Parts: sequence; structure tokens; C-alpha cells
Amino acid sequence: MARAFTVGADFGTNSVRAVVADCADGRIVGTAVADYASGDRGVLLDPRDPHLARQNPADWLDGLGASVREALAAAEAERGFARERVIGIGTDTTGSTPLPVDAACRPLALDPRWKGNLAAQAWLWKDHTAAAEAEAITETASRHAPELLAPIGGRYSSEWFWSKIWRCLKVAPDVFAAAASWIELADYVPATLAGVASPSAVRRCMCAAGHKAMYARRRGGLPAAAFLARLDPRLAELRGRLFDAAHPADRPAGHLSAEWADALGLPGGIPVAMGGFDAHYGAVGAGITVGTLVKIIGTSTCDIAIAPGSEPVGDIPGICGIVDGSVMPGYHGIEAGQSAVGDLLAWWVERQGTGGEAEHARLSAEAARLAPGASGLLALDWNNGNRTILVDQRLTGLLVGQTLATTRAEVYRALVEATAFGARAIVERLTEYRVAVERVVCCGGIAEKNDLFMQIYADVLGRPMLIAGSPQTPALGAAIAAAVAAGGAAGGHDAFEPAQRAMTGLKEKRFMPDGDAHGVYDDLYGLYRQLHDAFGGVTRGADLGPVMKRLLDLRERQARQTRGSAT
Amino acid sequence: MARAFTVGADFGTNSVRAVVADCADGRIVGTAVADYASGDRGVLLDPRDPHLARQNPADWLDGLGASVREALAAAEAERGFARERVIGIGTDTTGSTPLPVDAACRPLALDPRWKGNLAAQAWLWKDHTAAAEAEAITETASRHAPELLAPIGGRYSSEWFWSKIWRCLKVAPDVFAAAASWIELADYVPATLAGVASPSAVRRCMCAAGHKAMYARRRGGLPAAAFLARLDPRLAELRGRLFDAAHPADRPAGHLSAEWADALGLPGGIPVAMGGFDAHYGAVGAGITVGTLVKIIGTSTCDIAIAPGSEPVGDIPGICGIVDGSVMPGYHGIEAGQSAVGDLLAWWVERQGTGGEAEHARLSAEAARLAPGASGLLALDWNNGNRTILVDQRLTGLLVGQTLATTRAEVYRALVEATAFGARAIVERLTEYRVAVERVVCCGGIAEKNDLFMQIYADVLGRPMLIAGSPQTPALGAAIAAAVAAGGAAGGHDAFEPAQRAMTGLKEKRFMPDGDAHGVYDDLYGLYRQLHDAFGGVTRGADLGPVMKRLLDLRERQARQTRGSAT
Repeated sequence: MARAFTVGADFGTNSVRAVVADCADGRIVGTAVADYASGDRGVLLDPRDPHLARQNPADWLDGLGASVREALAAAEAERGFARERVIGIGTDTTGSTPLPVDAACRPLALDPRWKGNLAAQAWLWKDHTAAAEAEAITETASRHAPELLAPIGGRYSSEWFWSKIWRCLKVAPDVFAAAASWIELADYVPATLAGVASPSAVRRCMCAAGHKAMYARRRGGLPAAAFLARLDPRLAELRGRLFDAAHPADRPAGHLSAEWADALGLPGGIPVAMGGFDAHYGAVGAGITVGTLVKIIGTSTCDIAIAPGSEPVGDIPGICGIVDGSVMPGYHGIEAGQSAVGDLLAWWVERQGTGGEAEHARLSAEAARLAPGASGLLALDWNNGNRTILVDQRLTGLLVGQTLATTRAEVYRALVEATAFGARAIVERLTEYRVAVERVVCCGGIAEKNDLFMQIYADVLGRPMLIAGSPQTPALGAAIAAAVAAGGAAGGHDAFEPAQRAMTGLKEKRFMPDGDAHGVYDDLYGLYRQLHDAFGGVTRGADLGPVMKRLLDLRERQARQTRGSAT
Repeated sequence: MARAFTVGADFGTNSVRAVVADCADGRIVGTAVADYASGDRGVLLDPRDPHLARQNPADWLDGLGASVREALAAAEAERGFARERVIGIGTDTTGSTPLPVDAACRPLALDPRWKGNLAAQAWLWKDHTAAAEAEAITETASRHAPELLAPIGGRYSSEWFWSKIWRCLKVAPDVFAAAASWIELADYVPATLAGVASPSAVRRCMCAAGHKAMYARRRGGLPAAAFLARLDPRLAELRGRLFDAAHPADRPAGHLSAEWADALGLPGGIPVAMGGFDAHYGAVGAGITVGTLVKIIGTSTCDIAIAPGSEPVGDIPGICGIVDGSVMPGYHGIEAGQSAVGDLLAWWVERQGTGGEAEHARLSAEAARLAPGASGLLALDWNNGNRTILVDQRLTGLLVGQTLATTRAEVYRALVEATAFGARAIVERLTEYRVAVERVVCCGGIAEKNDLFMQIYADVLGRPMLIAGSPQTPALGAAIAAAVAAGGAAGGHDAFEPAQRAMTGLKEKRFMPDGDAHGVYDDLYGLYRQLHDAFGGVTRGADLGPVMKRLLDLRERQARQTRGSAT
């Protein structure tokens, strides 16, 4: 069979990246990035409200056209590539990023009447204006519909679908009234590519519906109208104009319209894959399987696992989301995360230090020479709250064990370790509820650049730490979804599993746990959990008197030991 | 009556400072400093053992001669001064700094046979080689003689008399065997000036005996031979060659020998005051009274209070020492302290930052613009352990409340506040046991230079913070002791109280507590005590879950408030 290719487009916060992937081996033969034109690097801000973050839908469309055309042009340099051999297109996006649309499924924001209204734009994932609404939803659900909260870790977020729509209703009722429906960016892009002209015809993806809109097929879809009416009767009324069903990514969202085929320079009518969140398609592109935890490590982390769809997975306390058919068709998709990882290290290096790459490198090199436990320090990684497993934004950082000799590199290492302990708390919670975690595959710059970080995680988790082969796993995952949407007969794949086997890989560099270090970290993790549970309000009546002394004991045992080199 | 003057000499760690004071008003009419010549700025080190710190007695004698001669020369510029009008000399020193002497009361270290032996030198106060011995003394006393521990806070220190002598016995038995007796630096200097030629003729001061050697008149002096024999029979045997009685400073230690009168250029036969510790004579020079706490604030702090000698003061748990007749005759001298104050701030500015005066000034200025509680931070001041009220060196620092926005200045302020909370714990412990603390008089560079520090202390303690008039309170205190030793008839004073009234004063600048700030600090101190008691092992079963949330609540309340300026 002739070689076949798919296009994947990844809609980030500041830009969209398009890749052209070879369906046989996943190799990227062309890639391009288009920055968003509006606002502050694509984010519309309001100087009066630091919590506001919106996005202009026109940026997506412009960026999509520019990046795909440029990626295709780059691919032409590849022998054996031709535009006619592109058999599908897939997209992934940030989320929850809902936007109001009109009856023709056009964003209100593109209508001159609403163009200048911030409430009519897309409500970007990191918009935090709806904190009061999130609080009220959590409160109402805990009293009247606790079954809605159990699968999302017990707390509804200000970043999510209903919080934002309710906020819009309150602060911009004219926008709310003008919206025929609301749609997630993840669904908007494929619907647009497929020329869908009515909100009711949009195939909504399970990722956004299940993880952000409290959709569950077994409960009859979206939250009941009676529940929504407790928030506001107009939300109950809106429910009828949203959607009844959400879908996994096993069938296409539609087929590429002539208009968009022309705009992108692609064959018309090729399948458009179901949309999905960047983290979910990133996990696909990282080769997620049952037993593999994919960690997307950036300023924060998103952790993705899957469990066989054939076995029920109950609610797991403190885990943000468990959704049938999200991430990959046929599996339960499970999402967790840490609120600050790269951000925590950047805080120490930049806000608490002189900053810059050189300082990062110096601290990391100095920290790498320390043995586990040798500093006597222990930290909680809560400078931005705790997303999983405590689901509590009102928690803060803690550092204990300082002496007058404590160095900046020792604190740096303690902060890396703290995030690793936070990661271990997530892994232990998953395995406690029989979600297998045998290995960890990481994506993101930290995973690729910071060996110390990776070795500490291997030693703390007691599991191999692997690195995804592609640096662009979300776009690759979208291209994989496109290959599955196209199917094996067209030169793609008939299911996600064989597509992943063919199109994903791992970097050769891997980090294996060191037995001695793991032993020391078992002790330190025990102390971490004591602090975690005491300050996290899990346990009352903790006996913390011995904590400092146990850290000093460990320090004395380890101080003169120099760490063996990483695998 | 013609004007009268006294000389005070203060033996520090690196140098000796001499002052010539006017007995009428305490004015310093001449001063000079002589650095010690040996070792690292006067401290003999051993590259193989970071805990070792010794001192060469020759440095003291050379430094005393040089500094007194130079101070007298400077005083000659003063109208009305003449050497014949110097009516007494007093000295204060570091301690516990014991040294082995021969039968003529000469330091073994001055004998060519022992000159090169580190064990034969003076064991400087900050020598920590005797940790194991201190531990064993504490352990033995707690089982067989708990009455020895009660007045010293429950734990015997590696810095003190018996620990060091026992250590010498173990590591250098030849030196121990060659010593006719051991003598504290505080007693050695006046005895030498007075030409005392036998250890048994040395008048030992109450400061050193009571605070460091477990001497108590009511218990028959030094610890019983039976107790010492449990440590080592040779220590029991040494007891007979030490001393039976220790004395307050109401009578002179002796009179200036012809040899030293000649060396110093002073009249022969003038009274030599009893020696005392720098902190104690510093308190005298700061004008200590019943109801005044004197804080000598440096790298660490020493806190001195006195209580009327007419009323018994029981043991106060966690207070390092309560000794009848130390500090001032006729009072109970009470000593407490914090292990790291200036050191803690220096650690943050220098070891955790770029260091230097400019950084100190920048952080201090930025921190001064913050309102109490506005950072949401809280720290424990234990980076060097806790001397009072927990008496536990095996405690470490703690910082809680960090967010990704936390600045270095906020941490700086939290560390200042932590030391103030530590100071409050001492004040509350004292007042709980009916030792009055109505005002605080501070000595030291921080008190004179750091207004932010002083205002925070005033606000945390809810008491006026005053600054001693003289920057050289220990030397002035020694000069006051000399004026009392000389007596009113000679142009001095008949007792310490009138001498202090005449010769000490306060700086005009004072820091008054602000009611609002004090209220916020009451809340923060409550949280501090929760952490203090939980991590200090005082309470088990603490409920720390609300701590971070209460700090965030306070932060939100205070964040937008700007602090009113200091009084």
C-alpha cells in the first residue's frame, strides 16, 4: 500500500501547532506553529480582573490555516509525501474552554454585534472568574446530588464548563440570552472543519463532557434539569440546547468540508477525528496502555491513566476525573494532577533567587551531588494548593528541616522531592483502587532536560521513568486519532492500540530506580505523608514531635554518602 | 570630690575591649580594642574536628595590656582625667571557658611543656567537642540527681565546665593529670590581675559557678563527689581541687598587683572587681532592674532578668539558669536565650541570597512595607535548635504558608517575626512563673540599626522596646562593678543600684507597640505556638489542618493594608 499520512493540530494557550505524521511509524514529516494574534500572546485579559482569561475564536481559525499549510509545505520535502496521501485530520485543544455559539454554530465572538464583549469570547481554561459559582455548584451538589461530585474528586472547579456558563449568565445576561448553545473548543474545531451548521449536530467528545460538564451516560447524560434549576432556572432551560450524548473517539466527528479542504490544501471529505483534550491525546501520543501512567510535566502536571473498559472502576477519592471512553475508546480514562511542579522550581530559582538558565543549571548540578535525605529537609509541594489527592486550593507550601548551613541547592532538591512525593501520593491512591501503575511515561521539557528530576522520581516512585519518543505528543495523538478515524483500509489503523504500537515510541534514555535511594525515600515519604495528612486535614491528632529528629537522623546517616550516578 | 574613673575590660571571642568610664555619669572617656594574635582571629581550630574551638591564654594577657594602655592614653585627652584618678578595674569574659592551671595558678598552656597541646589551652565557650559527655552528664543526672538539672532547663550543655573537663580527661589524660585545678576565664583574669598565686585562693564568681558548673550553695556547692564519681572517679577527685564557695560581685576579687599596675599604667592596689560573664555585666551596663528584660541581640540572643533576692524563685521549666547572686548581688540572676537571631537573618540574606549590606537593606525596606500577617507566612526560628524554652538542639527550622507569589522580603519578615515569637515564648514563660517583664532593653548592633526588627518585637511582645545607651554595655558593666568594688568613699559607688542609676542610660529612640499590629500578632503567635508545641514535642495530637487556612484568612484580611509608620 502507498504511504499514508495524517495531520494533527494541537491548540495550546498561546499558539496552534500542526504536524504531519506518517501512519506507518508516526514519524513527523512536517511541523509548524502559528502564534495567536490577539491579546497577550493569545489571551484576552482585563486589567480590572486578574482572574479573567479569554480567547478570540478567530485566532484559532487563522492559526489552524496558517500552521497546517506551513506543515504541509514542510512535508513536501519528504520523499514519498503528497497532499493526496493525507487520509485524515485530528485536533486536540485546551479545556475546559467553552464558548457561546449561535444557531448556525458560529461563535458569537465572530458576530460584529458581540465582537467587543469579553463575555462573548471563549472562556479559556485558566479563566478563574467563576470561583463563587464553582463554590455554589459544589455546595449544592454535595447537598442534593453528591453522585455528581464523587467522580470529580469531590469539588467542582472554577475552570470548568458550568461554572463559566453560570458566571456569564450573571455578569453578561445579554450574551447568555443570545447564545443558542455553548460548545467546548475541543468540539468546536472538528465541527467547524466538518462544516457542521447546527449546535445540535455537533458530536460532543467524552473528554470534555465527562471530565468538565459532569456528563455520565449511566446517569442520563448532563446533570438533571432539576439540579441545574437549583442553581438557576435558565441553566436548566439551557440544558435542552446543549447535548444528550457524548462520544468516544472511535468514530469520526465528520468529514472535511470543501471550504476547509480548500483553506488547508487538503483532500476534501477525509475523516475529521473526534476532538479531545491536549492531555488526553498527549497520553495517546505517549503510548498510554493499561499499567502506564502518562505524566505531562509542565508548570503543573496532568496525570493520565486508563483502565480496561470491561471492568467497572468505582469512584476514587481525590482523583479529579474518571470517565468511560475518554482518552481512548474502550477504556476508562482517569485524570489526576499536581498544581505546581515546574512552577514550584521556577518560583525557587526565579522569584526566590537570581533566576535564569544558569541558576537553574547550577542548582540542579549541585543538588545532583547530594544523597537522598542528606539535607535533612522535607517540603510540601502545595505553593499552588493541592489538586490531587486533597482537592484543596487553600493549602500552601511548607519547608521543614532548615539549619543555618542549609543551601539553596538543598532547598531546590527538597522541592523536586516534594513534587515526587506528591506524584507518589497519586500513584498510591490509584493502585489502592486497583488502577495498575507499572511504569511512568513522561512528556514535557522538564522530562527531557532535567535528569536529576527524573532520577528522583524513579527513586521515589520505585518505578522506571520513561520519556515519550515525540516532543509533540498531543499533536501526534491527534494525528493517531485521525489515522484511526480513517481506518486501516485507507492506510490508517483500525483501532487506537495498533495505531499507537505503530506510531508511538520512547526515548532510549530511561531512569531506573536505585534500591538504596528508594529505601531512603520510603522513610522520607512516610514523613511527607505525616505532614501531608496533618496539614491537609486528613488526620487530626498527629504526633509531629519526632519529625525533625527523624530528618536529622536520616541526614546524619546520609550526609557523607555521595550519590551513585544515575542509570 | 575629685572626679573618679574605672576601667572595664570585656574579653570577647576575637578581641578584648577596654573602656575608661567616668564614675559620675558612666561616660566613656577612652576606649580601645586589641585583637587576639593566635589562630583564626583568636580561635585555635583543628582541621580534623569542626567542633573544636580553643583559645591561647597569652592572647588575653597581651590583649589586656595593649587595650588598657591604649584606652588610658585616649582618656588623657579628657579634661579632668588622670591615671591616679582610676579607682578600680573590672573585667567580663565569655563563658563557659575553662582552662587547666598549675599549682601557681598559671595556665598549663603558658608552660613550654604543654604549649603545643590543644587540650591544654582554654576550652572556648563555643567548643562543641564534648557533646557525648554532655549527653552522659544529662543522662546520669536525670537518673541520680535530677535536682542538678531543674535549674538549668533540664539539659547540661556540651559548652559547659564539666563536659569540657571530662572530655579533656578522656582525650588528653596527661593534660588532665598535670592540671592542679581548672578555672573559668571569668575568674582567671581578676585573679591574675590581683596576683593570686594559688588556685585555692581564687575567688570564684557566682555567674560561672552557678550557671555552668552546677554550683549551688544550698546543695553544698559543686555537685557531690558521689555524683561525679558516677561519671569518672577522677572527676570526683578533682572536685577537691576546685572550689567550695562562689561569690557574688559585692566584694572585690582582690587588688591590683604591682606587676600588673606597672604593665597597665594604673595605680597599684586598686580594687579588682569580681569577674563575670559578658552577658551578665552587659545586663548591668544596660541598666537591668527588676521588671526589665535585657536582650543582648547578636548572632544568637542572651536574655537576662533579675528577681528580688528576698523572694525565692523556683525552677522555671526550660529556662537555662537561675542563680542566686549572679548578675547582681542581692538578686536571683535568670538567664535564657535564643539559638539563632542575627544568624537566622544572615542565613537568609547571605546563604540563601546574594548577601551583602545592600541585600540586607533592600529586604528590610521591602519587608517594612508589609502589614503583619499579609504574607500568609509563619516560621519556626529553630535553624540552630531551641535553647529556651524547649532546650533542644535537635530541632530545625520550618516555614509554612508559601505560595508561588511569595517574595524573599516576605520570608525575611517571617523570619524576623519567628524570632520575635521565640522571644515572646520566653517572656511568657518568665511571667507565668512570676518574673516581671515590663519593658525590654536591647543591646547589640541589630537593636541599634534595624528599626523593622525592633518594631516587630514591640508589636509581638506588646511591650516597649528600648535600646541601651552605651554600645559597649559589657565593658561598661565591668567598669560599674569596679566602681562598686572601689566604693563610694573612693569616688565610686556603694552598691550596684546607685552605680547603675548614675552610670547607665537609654537611647532616646524607642519602639512602642501598635495596638492593631499586636492584635494580629496575637493570632499569629497562637498559630506559632501550635507549631512550636507540635514539632517541639510538647503536645501530641495537635490538629494542624486549619493552620494554612487561618494563615490565608489573615493574609486576605491584611493584604491590602499598608502598615502605619513606627513610633
